[in-house]
Parts: sequence; C-alpha cells; structure tokens
Amino acid sequence: MASPGSGFWSFGSEDGSGDPENPGTARAWCQVAQKFTGGIGNKLCDLLPACDGERPTLAFLQDVMNILLQYVVKSFDRSTKVIDFHYPNELLQEYNWELADQPQNLEEILMHCQTTLKYAIKTGHPRYFNQLSTGLDMVGLAADWLTSTANTNMFTYEIAPVFVLLEYVTLKKMREIIGWPGGSGDGIFSPGGAISNMYAMMIARFKMFPEVKEKGMAAVPRLIAFTSEHSHFSLKKGAAALGIGTDSVILIKCDERGKMIPSDLERRILEAKQKGFVPFLVSATAGTTVYGAFDPLLAVADICKKYKIWMHVDAAWGGGLLMSRKHRWKLSGVERANSVTWNPHKMMGVPLQCSALLVREEGLMQNCNQMHASYLFQQDKHYDLSYDTGDKALQCGRHVDVFKLWLMWRAKGTTGFEAHVDKCLELAEYLYNIIKNREGYEMVFDGKPQHTNVCFWYVPPSLRTLEDNEERMSRLSKVAPVIKARMMEYGTTMVSYQPLGDKVNFFRMVISNPAATHQDIDFLIEEIERLGQDL
Amino acid sequence: MASPGSGFWSFGSEDGSGDPENPGTARAWCQVAQKFTGGIGNKLCDLLPACDGERPTLAFLQDVMNILLQYVVKSFDRSTKVIDFHYPNELLQEYNWELADQPQNLEEILMHCQTTLKYAIKTGHPRYFNQLSTGLDMVGLAADWLTSTANTNMFTYEIAPVFVLLEYVTLKKMREIIGWPGGSGDGIFSPGGAISNMYAMMIARFKMFPEVKEKGMAAVPRLIAFTSEHSHFSLKKGAAALGIGTDSVILIKCDERGKMIPSDLERRILEAKQKGFVPFLVSATAGTTVYGAFDPLLAVADICKKYKIWMHVDAAWGGGLLMSRKHRWKLSGVERANSVTWNPHKMMGVPLQCSALLVREEGLMQNCNQMHASYLFQQDKHYDLSYDTGDKALQCGRHVDVFKLWLMWRAKGTTGFEAHVDKCLELAEYLYNIIKNREGYEMVFDGKPQHTNVCFWYVPPSLRTLEDNEERMSRLSKVAPVIKARMMEYGTTMVSYQPLGDKVNFFRMVISNPAATHQDIDFLIEEIERLGQDL
Repeated sequence: MASPGSGFWSFGSEDGSGDPENPGTARAWCQVAQKFTGGIGNKLCDLLPACDGERPTLAFLQDVMNILLQYVVKSFDRSTKVIDFHYPNELLQEYNWELADQPQNLEEILMHCQTTLKYAIKTGHPRYFNQLSTGLDMVGLAADWLTSTANTNMFTYEIAPVFVLLEYVTLKKMREIIGWPGGSGDGIFSPGGAISNMYAMMIARFKMFPEVKEKGMAAVPRLIAFTSEHSHFSLKKGAAALGIGTDSVILIKCDERGKMIPSDLERRILEAKQKGFVPFLVSATAGTTVYGAFDPLLAVADICKKYKIWMHVDAAWGGGLLMSRKHRWKLSGVERANSVTWNPHKMMGVPLQCSALLVREEGLMQNCNQMHASYLFQQDKHYDLSYDTGDKALQCGRHVDVFKLWLMWRAKGTTGFEAHVDKCLELAEYLYNIIKNREGYEMVFDGKPQHTNVCFWYVPPSLRTLEDNEERMSRLSKVAPVIKARMMEYGTTMVSYQPLGDKVNFFRMVISNPAATHQDIDFLIEEIERLGQDL
Repeated sequence: MASPGSGFWSFGSEDGSGDPENPGTARAWCQVAQKFTGGIGNKLCDLLPACDGERPTLAFLQDVMNILLQYVVKSFDRSTKVIDFHYPNELLQEYNWELADQPQNLEEILMHCQTTLKYAIKTGHPRYFNQLSTGLDMVGLAADWLTSTANTNMFTYEIAPVFVLLEYVTLKKMREIIGWPGGSGDGIFSPGGAISNMYAMMIARFKMFPEVKEKGMAAVPRLIAFTSEHSHFSLKKGAAALGIGTDSVILIKCDERGKMIPSDLERRILEAKQKGFVPFLVSATAGTTVYGAFDPLLAVADICKKYKIWMHVDAAWGGGLLMSRKHRWKLSGVERANSVTWNPHKMMGVPLQCSALLVREEGLMQNCNQMHASYLFQQDKHYDLSYDTGDKALQCGRHVDVFKLWLMWRAKGTTGFEAHVDKCLELAEYLYNIIKNREGYEMVFDGKPQHTNVCFWYVPPSLRTLEDNEERMSRLSKVAPVIKARMMEYGTTMVSYQPLGDKVNFFRMVISNPAATHQDIDFLIEEIERLGQDL
C-alpha cells in the first residue's frame, strides 16, 4: 500500500493512478481491515450497514457505552483526579495519535476511546471550577447522545421537523422569561456566545442601515459600538470581523464592582456624535466574565432610548439568573433590550454548546441574513414555509443545539433551573463569607458577589508582612500561576486566574456545577493554602 | 407554584419575591419532582451527582441507549419509513412540546426521547438522498457520544488536551492530502462550511489590509470577491456579514457543466481593477452544491497568481474526493490555493458538524482574530502556549468537532475513506447510466457526473408529447415538487429538487451514504415513476 509521498497523494489522471491490487471498493478496505484485525473481536466492516450487522453493532456500541458510563461515574467521584495532566510533548509521545492509511479493528477503537478519556479533564467533577461551563447533567447528556444519533441539520423543517418546532417553543419561552410580551420576537441557537454577540451587532447595523447588506460598510457612516471595559472580548472580535473595526468599539469605564458607569456611557456617546460618528449599539453585560458584574440595565436602557441606539444585553453568563425569583432582579431592564445573548450551556448546566440570541423584533434576522438559496428554501414545498428557519442564520448547516436544553427543561422544570442557580449562588456566598476575613486572603472587590464569581488573592505567609509596593505586587502576581500549575499537576482541583487592568493575577472562582457542595469549597481553600503556603 | 404571568417572571426585589414554600434549593425541586413522579421509576434527583446515584444513572442511561440502538437498527432497515411526515400544525398538536415550571419524571423523559425519534428523519436510511450529508457511521456516532460525555471546549490545551492535539494531527494530515509540503500551514474546525468560507474571506482581507482589523472597511478601498454563479450562497452571506456587501461579490459565468469559465473570471477582474476596485479573493468551488461541478483550479490558480489575488477553494462538498486515488485529479490545483474549505461531514460521512478551514500560511488566522483575552490565554502558564489555539477562532467557546473524524479515520484508514468515496461515485454513475437513455428522463447537463450529483427531470407521460414551449416548462416545473411531497407523505425515500438559472425544478440526486446500494437506486427510479406517472 502506497504511503504519503509515494504517489498516493499525487494528482493522477482521469483513469486513476491507484494500485491495481487496491481497487478502492468497499470490499477492498474490508479485506484490509480483516487482515489487520488478527481475528480478535468484531471488525469495522461487520457493523451496520453490513447485512447481519445488528448484533456486532449493538455489541460495539454497548462497549462504548460502558466506557462512557465508567467515565461518568468517575467524574462525580471526589477520590478521582480532575485531570491526569501531561505536558503537550509528553502527551504526544505517550500514545500513537497519528492517522494512517490502514484501518484498525474495533478493539483498538475502544482502546482509543479509553485513552482519550484517560487524559480528558473531568469537566463534571465537583471540584472543577475552571470555566463558566462546568458540570455534567445526565438528562442533558442523554439528549446530546440522541442529537448525535438523529444526526441532522437545522436548516429546514423538512429534515428536522421536531427540532425546528422545539427551537420555536424554547426560544419563545426564553423570550417570555426575558419579559417580552407573549414571548414575541425572534431568535436562534448559535455556536456560542461570541457568535450570538456578533449576530446582535450585525442585526443592529442592518436595522439602522439595511443597505449595508448589499453595499457594505462603504455606504454607511462610521459606526460606533459601546461596551464596558469589563465586557467580553467577543465584541471586539465581532467588530473586527464585521468590518467595523476594533477602534470603533468604545470601552466604557466601570465602577469598582465592574459595572458600566452610565454617565461615562452618555459622555462617550455624545463625544462620538460630536465627531460625526453614528452610535449604533450599546452592549451591556449581565454577568461579566471575571467579576460577574451586572451592568445597570435600566439606566443603559434609558440612554439607548434617548439616543435611539440598539440595546444589546450580553447575558451569556448571567442569563441563567433569569430563572431564579431570588436573583432575577439583577437583570432588571433586560426586557427593554433589543437583543439578548443567553447561554444555557453556562449557568444552566446544559452540555456544550447551547447559546441563544434572542431578538425583540421579528423578521429582522431573516431580512439581514437571507439569501434565498433555491436548493434549500424552495418556495413550492407542500408545508408551511415559515418553519424553514435556516435562512435567518449566517451558517448554512447548523448543529441541533436545542434538544438538550429542551429535554433538561422538561426534566427539571423551570423550578429545577431555579434551584440549580440558587444553589450555585449560595455556594459562592459561602466561599465569600469564609475568605473575606480569613488570614492570607484579599478580595479583589468589596461586597457580596452578585453572581458566582468570587475574585481574590491568596497571599502566602512570606508576603503578608511586606509593604504594599511594586515588589510585593510583582511577587503576588506569580503566586496564582504557581498554585494553578501545582493544582493541575496534582490534579485535585482547577480554578482560573488572570490579571485585570491594574490588578495582578488573582483567582476567579466560579460555580455553575450543582454537584459542588460546601465541602468542595472548603477543599478548594485548603488546597490553595497547601499548595501556596511555601511561596 | 406561580405560573408565568402571576409574578414568577416579574423583577422582584433584592430579597427575592419567591414563594416561601419553594425556597429554590436543590432539595426543594427534588421534593417537587418526587411529588410528580407518583412513585413510578427513577426520579431525576436520584441520578448522579446524587449520593448513591450510580445505579439509577446507569439504569437511566442504559434505557436511553436502548432507545437509541433501536433507532439505529431501524435507520438501516429498508422496510421502515425514512420519515413519518406530519405537517407543522399537526406535529404541534400531536404531542405536548411545551415547557413548564414543574419537573417530569424519568419515564416521561424516556417517552420524549422515543417520541422525538418517532418523528425524526432517518438521515442514515439507505434511501435518504435529500442532502449532501447523509448516513450514520457507527464509529463516528460512538465518537460523538464520547465528545458529549467529555463535554469540553476547544479554547485551550488546559481544558481539552487530547482534543487540541488531535485537531493538530488531523488538520496537518488534511493539509498533507491537499498537497501542502509537509502538511505545513494552519487551520481550524469551524461550525460549518459557511463559516469556513467566511473565515477565508476574513483572512484574505486581513492579509492584504491588516489595518482592517482596527480601522474597519472605511480604511480600505472597495474590495471585490469573485466566485462562480453556481457557487454556494455562503460567499454572499459572508460578504454581507463582513461589511463587504453582496454587490461586491461578482458571479463568474459557468459552462454548461457548471464550471467557472476562467476567461470570464479574468475579464471581470480586469473590469474591477479598471473601476479602481481591489480584487482580493477568488473562491473556486470544488463540487458545486447542485451540479457537483469542479471549477478548473489550475486555470484559476494561474489567474490568481497573475493578479496576486487570494485563492480560496470551497471544497466543502468535493474535498472528500481528495481521499480517492481514482477521483482526486478533479481537484488538481487545490494545492496552489491559499485556503480550502473541506467538510468531512459531507462526502466522508462524519456526523454533523465537522468542517475544516485549511490555510496555507501559518499564523495569519491568529493575527487576524486574536484579542489576547487574559482570562483564557494567560501568558504565564506552565505549558507550551502554542497549544492554546482558541484565539485564532472567531468563536470563544468552540465545540469539539474533531474527535469523530479522527476516530473514524483510525477505524477506516485513509483507504476506508477512499473506498467510501469510490463506492458513492460508482453508485451515481450507475444511476446516470440507467436514466440517461430511459424514457421519461431528461438530463439537466450532458455527460458522466463528476461528483455524485445527478441532475435530471422526470417527465410524466402526459408531458412527453408536448412541444418544448413555455407551457410545457411551466407544467414540468410542478412535477418534482409534487413527487417530492408524495415521497415525504409515503415516507419511502427523499431526494432534493430545485430550479437553477433558467432551468425549472429538477431533481438533484446525491449520494454520500455508503449504506446505499444499486437496489436503492433502482428503488428511487421506480418510486419516482410510481408517484409521478399520473401527473
């Protein structure tokens, strides 16, 4: 069999330059597979769609399932590591990850599954606090398996009838919860919060200058977007992509809690207008990435109304709090937004990915994005074409992201999500109460956290008596990275750190996994102290 | 318990406006759940992470698995329907899809899974020919289940060590197959071909005018992209999004086989330059959506070289042919492209979604998109930061799309994909040979198909004797939609149709599912005739 470089990859003639012994038929690769399996276990070519493939297929998938179940059980077992950490060069050498010409047998495939999971991060582990998306919901997982098995695309009702209806039902419910009358409006599930925010920017621009679709940015005045200095970097990514440019994203000052200062917003809007620029979008954040801050949405809404600017709320992280009667007041004013990003894959624990963009005005997304591809959106179909929603997306094929949210919602009810959110916020408060007066801890900002973000420095004994000067800051900045590296090497827990503005590296604790308990919070504190006391 | 409208959704005070009987803790919703389960089966709150949750979890997931396995087996069973079609309003009434405040028990959840699959399209069915993505590969499916279970994000090595390495290995292999020396270059898995094409456009623009990132389109001259009139609509969607505008996408004429005419490309480039515009991208198509045509890449490459224009190849559909020694000559010249879109979820049968953008020049994607978010891409981590590849993406969180491709590749080998591709192309040729001279069929274009697209009209007996005039065209245009509607109502098979240019509705047959056989092709023909002969 030819290998790369020996002609396999060259461009032959129309007649094919293949080896005559390898005619490249299904039979041929099955023969190759049989040669390599050595008679152990089932072969790939025994699986469905092979005739009599049912039994080997069930056996193979059952084997896979057993490996997955084992992993699931381990994920929740506090006596197992969160991560079996290897440096990239070690991991590359630890196993043969290369792709080859020849097939492998199913035993080898099962071994690859096991090995892959061996080195995976257990993102469902109760002591994994590293990202905004943590946890592993069993119903969500089941739903995602079903989604894979259904293996379809969201562009038309024709090929995804149930999923299209469920997207309709679910987005409507989310809009009701935002507070839009009767759940009216529009929306889409998109591949992540960054893309949802970019959609908002696109739609806001289109609403103001519909000619931009055909004529591009050359036909419109200079547009300016406003968002806080603590907002997510995707606003700038979006502006760069959309041809608006990052210079046209003005970062508004925040108060000490990380909330946008409305007076600074108004000042910068006026400044932009005086320069002849056109403010077209304010993106307020409901739950900033690092501090978990909620911008004052009511004040922002007033300003947007006054200057006729599209109000977007990036509630990718904070949107989950809308499910809680106790905490949803933090998003008061979101009902006045023109669009909202809300990622159920964050605070609501839905498996990755599940991000919604909700839009108040119906039809705008469709007008902004549609291209009427006649091979998909035939106008002479026999059913109600309003369910062929694919043309409102920027994507053509679109993954089914709704089913896991919908099924979890059925299983938990709105009250279940509420309990989930309330529990995580209670845990964050528990952590805050422990460390706010504990020796060796300094809070990055004062006061009870509004979300589950708890930001703090751990100050090792050797630094506690130092004066508050540059040298101390420099030494303090090195503490969190070392503790984090040790955490990963021990594999006991994971929490994120970062600098922000003039603040050197600090820990950002977040909790979105309902599997976590008070004991896990206690453990985190002990672990930080164990790993950091000698620094 | 409050229902929507009765205060649940209102914005209360900081103290919460909740019902005191429902304090919103995990215990509370579990009590609610218990109340509603009525003692039948397991309850949601029995599942992991509950203590002693292991047994109920395994039982629940095993039940789900059994439902999925049943569906998988049925998908390949020719005696089952491809689709149990219901009109949207019927489907909405057939079942209660609504979301409620209260939880449901696991029996109900299992029933929802069964019901969802009952109405799903069996996209793995050997007689489902409706889209470019068909089939259900068992190893791909297993890999996708594993991906769901690992439930992580692609932004950093820290939280996706294996998947980041596998993306590296797999993209390198794909670049080798394209023909870039040593597999060098760059790339990313993106959420679909439309986004991959948009990336190419962004990167091409950035390469020529890096200042566009900060300054936006206002700082650059009018940019013009060129693609054929048969190319995918995503080029226009991308141009609209990126602020280039759809008017700046020039559609180049195609020959009768749907291939871009190089002389027309050159003419239009010169025309644009004469107007003072800047041609920045040519997107050639390798495998057009409807005709399956391959643009003449070598001639396009010469023109791009001559005028120093970025050459992109949209091989979303045709890229799979690179795996075949017999057919890869159709993409000769792809190795001269600056970027290539290649969707393994189409011709290679990888589950949805799996789309790669490959870029010849390394580092460009990173420079184009990076925003250095310090909370993700800390510069003082303890491992090699070149594996933190997330900042080259437009997305922040990014779904793991590589594992299913990697695992299938291990299972099949390159030779297995070759066999898959060769088989599907052989089936298309079989269909072509049957219908090209058969009574009642007219080919949309002459000659053997280059991909698996076979485009044809079925002409019912009543139209066969009519003169070739407007009335006949008008009647012929109504034939395919009626046959398609009947196919869906019977649920026996599905194939797409569309008009194109001055050609009225015709069938576009495509084959990407290796489960299909000659008998399935025969069945399709019989079915078209059975359902269309009275028209």
